Amino acid sequence: MSNDLLFGLNTALEIVKAGKRKIYRLVISRGEQDKKVRELVTLARARGAAVEFSDPAALEKLACGGNHQGIILETEPIKKLDITEALALEKNLKKTVWAALDGITDPMNLGAIIRSAACFGVSAVIIPERRSVGVTPTVQKAASGALEKVNIVECVNLNQTILALKEKGFWVYGADMEGKRLDRVDFALPALVVIGSEGSGMHLKTRGHCDEVVSIAQKGGVESLNASAAAAVFFYEISKRLQ
Amino acid sequence: MSNDLLFGLNTALEIVKAGKRKIYRLVISRGEQDKKVRELVTLARARGAAVEFSDPAALEKLACGGNHQGIILETEPIKKLDITEALALEKNLKKTVWAALDGITDPMNLGAIIRSAACFGVSAVIIPERRSVGVTPTVQKAASGALEKVNIVECVNLNQTILALKEKGFWVYGADMEGKRLDRVDFALPALVVIGSEGSGMHLKTRGHCDEVVSIAQKGGVESLNASAAAAVFFYEISKRLQ
Repeated sequence: MSNDLLFGLNTALEIVKAGKRKIYRLVISRGEQDKKVRELVTLARARGAAVEFSDPAALEKLACGGNHQGIILETEPIKKLDITEALALEKNLKKTVWAALDGITDPMNLGAIIRSAACFGVSAVIIPERRSVGVTPTVQKAASGALEKVNIVECVNLNQTILALKEKGFWVYGADMEGKRLDRVDFALPALVVIGSEGSGMHLKTRGHCDEVVSIAQKGGVESLNASAAAAVFFYEISKRLQ
Repeated sequence: MSNDLLFGLNTALEIVKAGKRKIYRLVISRGEQDKKVRELVTLARARGAAVEFSDPAALEKLACGGNHQGIILETEPIKKLDITEALALEKNLKKTVWAALDGITDPMNLGAIIRSAACFGVSAVIIPERRSVGVTPTVQKAASGALEKVNIVECVNLNQTILALKEKGFWVYGADMEGKRLDRVDFALPALVVIGSEGSGMHLKTRGHCDEVVSIAQKGGVESLNASAAAAVFFYEISKRLQ
């Protein structure tokens, strides 16, 4: 498995501070003088990373067109867990909310959803191997370091994973265009929130596995909220149960 | 003022259906056969637009690098209002929520915020002329047609605009990292929600004009929600007052 390349100052700082991954190399565009850049260099060196100051052209080449903003961090790849490993990390299932993404293909959306998950205490995000975007540098940049706070669970078959979690006591709530109003749902924990793709929503079979199908009351007549906006609102409402 | 070029099937369909702007021209990549494309062609012709089927290369050239997805719609420019014009369009101020954006520079974020505004009944979005991204094709694509449902108000000085709205009876709520918990705020209408930029939040002076500074309770320790996620949650909570 190849190493991860992470782009941008804030993402790099979050990752170095979180201390969850091995940091191999920090490459900085010559001329970056920001105070936060100096902080990043100090922290990266303390974590054993090689620090290189390079020409902008060298960064361009290394980033392969990614939006690096003068900072590239090379780390060990993000660790993906299976559900058994992720469950073992939960201290209290009665205070556990996970999310499952059903066919999210836009990397900015995936990154934003992971970031919102971290903000609202959703501790794991389940991503099916197929029909989804991978955890690319663009996703990690949009997540802005949130990948260090949220466990990423990769699964082969989302429906089987949902059934396995139901056996562990999870209640399954699916976000959809029609369903019970979000603010009237009496959430029970542990909970799994299923977010479908923007275009087509949840798959029919996945919908059938939900204990409750939930919708966000909307007034505008626009087709629907952006998937990451819907996820943020959903996580916000269910996070009230985590307080 | 030059015409707007809008990209993508869903955006084009929303705009043609809304019927708020003059449609001059619809350019489609030869080979697009989708049922929705045929619907778009019929609707655009009914609205008096010239419909052209072109080579992909011609679309590339017209889009200047934009993500056109085989469909380009040329329309009159989006109409920007001043606050007097926008106020005149409100039927009932006691059921009015507006938003003001303080320094949002990312076009995807601006588009997503406008889309969430439309979904939650926020009827106008105020954008300062300077230090903000304009309503570019990328913004309009991310807004996915929501610009036909939300009035865009351009202002020269955000603080003066806020003061003018306060004189009209608006209550001003600012989203910030520290403040009263969102779900404990007793919103009064008409309301103006001020959303700051991701990096630096609201400007200090703008913060001083708020009747209440409000924060979204977060647990993850990640620096903050993405600005468009924060806006979605804020609009969702205040939209409960519009029901």
